[in-house]
Amino acid sequence: MATRIIAIYHVKDSADRIAARAHAIAVEQSVEMPVSAITDRGVLDDIVGKVEDIKDLHDGGFEVRIGLAVATTGLEPGQLMNMLFGNSSIHADIELHDAEFPDPVLSAFGGPNHGLCGLRARAGAQNRALTCSALKPQGLDAKALADIAARLAAGGLDFIKDDHGLADQSYSPFAERVPAVAEAVRRANPKTGYLPSLSGNLDQLRAQVKIARQAGLNAALIAPMITGLASFHTLVRENPDIAFMAHPALAGASHIAPPLLLGKIFRLMGADATVFPNHGGRFGYSRQTCHALADAARSPWADLKAGVPVPAGGMTPERVPEMLQFYGSDVMLLIGGGLLAAGPRMTEEAAKFQDAVASAMVA
Amino acid sequence: MATRIIAIYHVKDSADRIAARAHAIAVEQSVEMPVSAITDRGVLDDIVGKVEDIKDLHDGGFEVRIGLAVATTGLEPGQLMNMLFGNSSIHADIELHDAEFPDPVLSAFGGPNHGLCGLRARAGAQNRALTCSALKPQGLDAKALADIAARLAAGGLDFIKDDHGLADQSYSPFAERVPAVAEAVRRANPKTGYLPSLSGNLDQLRAQVKIARQAGLNAALIAPMITGLASFHTLVRENPDIAFMAHPALAGASHIAPPLLLGKIFRLMGADATVFPNHGGRFGYSRQTCHALADAARSPWADLKAGVPVPAGGMTPERVPEMLQFYGSDVMLLIGGGLLAAGPRMTEEAAKFQDAVASAMVA
Repeated sequence: MATRIIAIYHVKDSADRIAARAHAIAVEQSVEMPVSAITDRGVLDDIVGKVEDIKDLHDGGFEVRIGLAVATTGLEPGQLMNMLFGNSSIHADIELHDAEFPDPVLSAFGGPNHGLCGLRARAGAQNRALTCSALKPQGLDAKALADIAARLAAGGLDFIKDDHGLADQSYSPFAERVPAVAEAVRRANPKTGYLPSLSGNLDQLRAQVKIARQAGLNAALIAPMITGLASFHTLVRENPDIAFMAHPALAGASHIAPPLLLGKIFRLMGADATVFPNHGGRFGYSRQTCHALADAARSPWADLKAGVPVPAGGMTPERVPEMLQFYGSDVMLLIGGGLLAAGPRMTEEAAKFQDAVASAMVA
Repeated sequence: MATRIIAIYHVKDSADRIAARAHAIAVEQSVEMPVSAITDRGVLDDIVGKVEDIKDLHDGGFEVRIGLAVATTGLEPGQLMNMLFGNSSIHADIELHDAEFPDPVLSAFGGPNHGLCGLRARAGAQNRALTCSALKPQGLDAKALADIAARLAAGGLDFIKDDHGLADQSYSPFAERVPAVAEAVRRANPKTGYLPSLSGNLDQLRAQVKIARQAGLNAALIAPMITGLASFHTLVRENPDIAFMAHPALAGASHIAPPLLLGKIFRLMGADATVFPNHGGRFGYSRQTCHALADAARSPWADLKAGVPVPAGGMTPERVPEMLQFYGSDVMLLIGGGLLAAGPRMTEEAAKFQDAVASAMVA
């Protein structure tokens, strides 16, 4: 019998149509042709998607559970997404709400190399939340960015990541910026980890990882839905010494539930930490979404290491106590613009942020 | 003065808030930090996004035009998407509706290598629509798929593409399937072009293109939003002899208008042909969306070759006259399941489809 992934869709449709609709999704996400025209017994038994359950959500929609054969994914990240949601993503009334992956999928993709424990060890912070800030604005040259990074690091932050807008632009090429920032951060605070933002095709990504490693770095930021999950997963497996923080660019409001995509799937593919917009900031995620996303990223899940949820997006040092209360200490708090806005007082603001998080440990 | 892309967003917001909202989007899609904290004159003048225009759409929303500096994209496909919509994609009330690209962007990415004229020349069909079918179901072995492909090709079709679900699975590995299908198609009808479906990371994609070329093929199918636009564009530029058909998997219902993503952006990155769900089929695109998408794919656009719109998704031979009336002859009609469902009469159905399209030329 075929080992199956359970894909869980939320579908807006009427009670009298939902059974046929569920069957149509099962077909669309597997053989994508009239089942009546399939004569091969093996395809009918082991490849065609199976409706496992339909549940009325009493909100005008239904939860539909479909069993998709693991074999159809070829255990390749892009093809996994294709089978989970490739064509059905085109339907505005279907959300890919969740997925349950059997062991062969978990072991094939493998999850984070470092995760929460690894990043805690690097920061020397066993019992408290981690801290992070973002280096920006793009448009500055390498030297100016290195100067800002040094001022943030001097505040004692655990991590500084490039803004996801920093790529390989002419005003600040990756090969110039990354060694300069790495050196500036090291001088300002050798305990601060710096995560450069990776971009481009797999050749370029590999070249950037090499530059980062030559600059003494062991972590990086990447936006998996921009590079493609395959490029992301390849980097993770090729570089077990590098910790990867995933960024939600182009991923945040698709018809895939954020806890599944940014939490579970990014973790499955190897995200040690995953950035997402916190409730009450510049973006519209609810408290419930944020809670579910954090859980998906860090809760026990087979043999996969726990990842680090990184709520962000318009956060300020004032919100630290409330965020720690909401997320607990298995979290990395990321404040970018809220520190940069302090201008000449940036280092003091960073230190205040760091202290607020560190002192919360005692409470 | 910075050369700018004009990104056009449709935003649901109130009249009294829209000016501030437009400014926030301009900041989010460029420097992503409080502008008041930026002191560098060059960044303020040339990098921060500019609100160019706000227009009331009188449907509860506004059209907002934002000038984004070309330099921020680094002329890299992924970073282009990141700057157009990376973080703003997380807002459920913003759609990336369209974009106007200045010449440096067009020449850097380059568009299709073959396009409509190239595919017409290959099919020897100067004045009529092109035809295509899809090879499936996945789960069959290479020999069984080759047999189906031969029966479709014998009907005289211009092109046969792999279903986008065919990847590199154990039951039909790419390296076995593609040479077998290519040979079967060649024997059944040497004029039929076969497009294998490419998947995986850039290493795997390159290896698959090599296998396809060794099998005598000169065209392929790819889903750019699954592989990542960077992988897609790299393949296009590395393989000027291969024609690429783009598939909308994972791309069809994001907050990016389909005419922009599947039409304009896929064409910019080099799609010779672009598959999309036709109105009145299994998916919910409107006639207006389909019309706009076809126009974006094939209308005159600077020096870029015209691409081929490929409406699909539950089409039948009966709809050929109506589709030709709607799209004209600069189109490729794709019927997959509708032919496969004929079982033993598949070749006759394919021939009927081909004849319907070919005879329409005379009308």
